[in-house]
Amino acid sequence: MSFFSRKKRSSSSHAPSAPSLPESYDQRGQTYSTSHQSNYSQQQQQPYYGQGNGGVSSYGYSGFPPGTSPDIIRSFEMVDRDRSGFIDENELQQAISSGYQRFNIRTVRLLMFLFKYPNDSLRCGPKEFAALWSCLGQWRGIFERYDKDRSGKIDLFELRDALYSLGFAIPSSVLQVLISKYDDGSGRRVELNFDSFVECGMMLKGLTEKFKEKDRRHTGTTAFNYDEFMSTIIPFLVSYD
Amino acid sequence: MSFFSRKKRSSSSHAPSAPSLPESYDQRGQTYSTSHQSNYSQQQQQPYYGQGNGGVSSYGYSGFPPGTSPDIIRSFEMVDRDRSGFIDENELQQAISSGYQRFNIRTVRLLMFLFKYPNDSLRCGPKEFAALWSCLGQWRGIFERYDKDRSGKIDLFELRDALYSLGFAIPSSVLQVLISKYDDGSGRRVELNFDSFVECGMMLKGLTEKFKEKDRRHTGTTAFNYDEFMSTIIPFLVSYD
Repeated sequence: MSFFSRKKRSSSSHAPSAPSLPESYDQRGQTYSTSHQSNYSQQQQQPYYGQGNGGVSSYGYSGFPPGTSPDIIRSFEMVDRDRSGFIDENELQQAISSGYQRFNIRTVRLLMFLFKYPNDSLRCGPKEFAALWSCLGQWRGIFERYDKDRSGKIDLFELRDALYSLGFAIPSSVLQVLISKYDDGSGRRVELNFDSFVECGMMLKGLTEKFKEKDRRHTGTTAFNYDEFMSTIIPFLVSYD
Repeated sequence: MSFFSRKKRSSSSHAPSAPSLPESYDQRGQTYSTSHQSNYSQQQQQPYYGQGNGGVSSYGYSGFPPGTSPDIIRSFEMVDRDRSGFIDENELQQAISSGYQRFNIRTVRLLMFLFKYPNDSLRCGPKEFAALWSCLGQWRGIFERYDKDRSGKIDLFELRDALYSLGFAIPSSVLQVLISKYDDGSGRRVELNFDSFVECGMMLKGLTEKFKEKDRRHTGTTAFNYDEFMSTIIPFLVSYD
């Protein structure tokens, strides 16, 4: 069964405002693994901009990339009430949340940071919004694929597999630490909803990309000087608050 | 004017329950800088255990290191109501907070993580408590030294100097990102109270120590493989939540 048919099957039970999986999404990418044997060049997470209309809305949002889906433009317009062409974190939260899935403001901030408008992570323009929406659509598809019992939650092992399919080979020990923050102390097995999945996944994606930027020769090991090390990590700590 | 006389002068205006500066604290340590010219071997942040009594309280806390101050033992006893010999994050918050300085639970969690009981950052034993208390005392002294107008707050440049004196040469650009999380959006210059100073400083200290562990030859540059990079950072992200 193909990935896309799974997505289509499952998406019918969800609210239509959820970002949809871009048709161009290619799952054949390779994973970023640290084992010496494996090829870890991560698949390109290219934002999908579609091939449709020209990305110009009825009231003139010309900032969208050509071919942006009208649904994405409409979602942006709905929250950008002052028609400034930019939205803040609360507006973004509203745009990407829906009846069945509300995003935590922490996740929204992290998304703002990772898809930031050049030099400004407090606002999001049409370009960033379109890229972010498409990315969320990909992740929604992956989440639904690995949520095998359709519970709306995935556990540690499903998370590991889901991230692997997104191109991240994260050791289980690291994931265990990462998901411990979602432990409610009840003693029950920790499971992540889509919001938490996005939060974890985006954090791992962002850090992995930082590592890759330095590891140009794709050896799986790279040198950091102290300034670089601190400058790489600190923004994640701040955005993850 | 010596560091200690300043500390003594200023501490008289504060509640006595604030951790005090250990007399053994040596400020002559070298800073951890990344510039090629400078010596960046960081001063040893040895916990101070004093030279006084045997560290055994009236009801038998034998877990304190020899010479722990009775004040520290008393503070621990006061919050460890079930006399289990361990305290949780809420009890730690209560122990280190006082009328004029309440620590945010986020800072407390970070302290728990950095001074964790072996393999367990949800509780804190006498040894960890004594080390943590002494460290806070050192930091209080530094904070008061650099809070030149005695406002109870320090700005970016005072923070940079204060951290430098603690052994961390952090570039202003990194500090600017770090303190942006304390920006209240009023447009006023960001200033940190002691709680936020400890939060920022402990985070920088923890990350610097991780870097140093890898940089055994003290060259200022060290290699990480992807697993190491992720395993180093993720716990900070989780604890900093």
